Amino acid sequence: MLKLYYATGTCALATHITLEEAGAPYEAVRVDFGSQQQRSPEYLAVNPKGRVPALVTEAGTLTETPALLCFVAQRFPAAELAPLADPFALAQVQEFNSYLCSTVHVAHAHGRRGTRWADGAEAIEAMKRKVPATMTECFELIEHKLIKGRWVMGDRYTICDPDLFTIGSWIEGDGVDTSKLPRVMRHRASMLARPAVQKAVAVEGTQIR
Amino acid sequence: MLKLYYATGTCALATHITLEEAGAPYEAVRVDFGSQQQRSPEYLAVNPKGRVPALVTEAGTLTETPALLCFVAQRFPAAELAPLADPFALAQVQEFNSYLCSTVHVAHAHGRRGTRWADGAEAIEAMKRKVPATMTECFELIEHKLIKGRWVMGDRYTICDPDLFTIGSWIEGDGVDTSKLPRVMRHRASMLARPAVQKAVAVEGTQIR
Repeated sequence: MLKLYYATGTCALATHITLEEAGAPYEAVRVDFGSQQQRSPEYLAVNPKGRVPALVTEAGTLTETPALLCFVAQRFPAAELAPLADPFALAQVQEFNSYLCSTVHVAHAHGRRGTRWADGAEAIEAMKRKVPATMTECFELIEHKLIKGRWVMGDRYTICDPDLFTIGSWIEGDGVDTSKLPRVMRHRASMLARPAVQKAVAVEGTQIR
Repeated sequence: MLKLYYATGTCALATHITLEEAGAPYEAVRVDFGSQQQRSPEYLAVNPKGRVPALVTEAGTLTETPALLCFVAQRFPAAELAPLADPFALAQVQEFNSYLCSTVHVAHAHGRRGTRWADGAEAIEAMKRKVPATMTECFELIEHKLIKGRWVMGDRYTICDPDLFTIGSWIEGDGVDTSKLPRVMRHRASMLARPAVQKAVAVEGTQIR
């Protein structure tokens, strides 16, 4: 039995959806960011980084969304969530998810968690002001260059899809004009039609338009 | 024949070393950041993100270091650069490399490329001031929690090692006190003893103490 630690409104949703898609046996455990539970000694013993997601497995605990998504795909291969045997195709999947975590998620985080990178109210405000521009730039690249079809990789659903859906659910709050992102918004609608997505969203209590 | 686009002093060094370790047939092509070559129409046709590394393969172009490292390991399995058949062990490798790109590299970049995330001299200076603290925090986690032995994953050299070596080569410039990081510094010395590292460093003209 796997155990997923998540908090509502975070990137943990991508792994949550993927565990559902895989038909994995797992338990979802909520971490309450409101009371700073991620900084409690109990949670830091699970994940010293003090963040979510964390996935407890029989062999130990794993963190970092791209690693977790690939792990679930490889551990439950019957679900066919990634092109595991094709080095180039798998690299394309990992390239997309790596871009989401190292560029897009980071751009978003400057609006909420600027204190990670600078102190002082003026710097924090300057970071917030730039979020609409940086997130728009990221999503224009995704819209025009990275989405290959109905799903991110084309005809086949992969572990890129819950990752885009999750980070893409933040863009209205980040001041991005979604009317210019028809493919991203169609992708969101396709995701919301999947039972695995509906279940994970309902359990977490995520608000998605 | 693969073609690696790199610039000196960037994270492309990790992929460069890994291609050498794999015995891959490849050509290394320098991108001159001094003349902003990464923003030229010719280079943007290779990589619309305007960054390095980019790896041109027979099937198309790939970017993002964690994806490239895993691709090289999977494409040249005889070199045994990653535990490809073990989902948990591979996830640990990817977890480490994902942390480097989405947290450590990002922390470092606030010292050099703060304009990605805010405008205005005061905000840029505030970001620069925090780099020693954020990079120290990252490398304390790496020193005390993440390095498992002589190599990052323990006894076996993996694609984590060139990635740590590359990003770890920036820490003096980021104001990190290396005297408190004996395992990180032993790792650097072990890396510098490898012929593949020596060759990639020499070709790029990288300065490492």
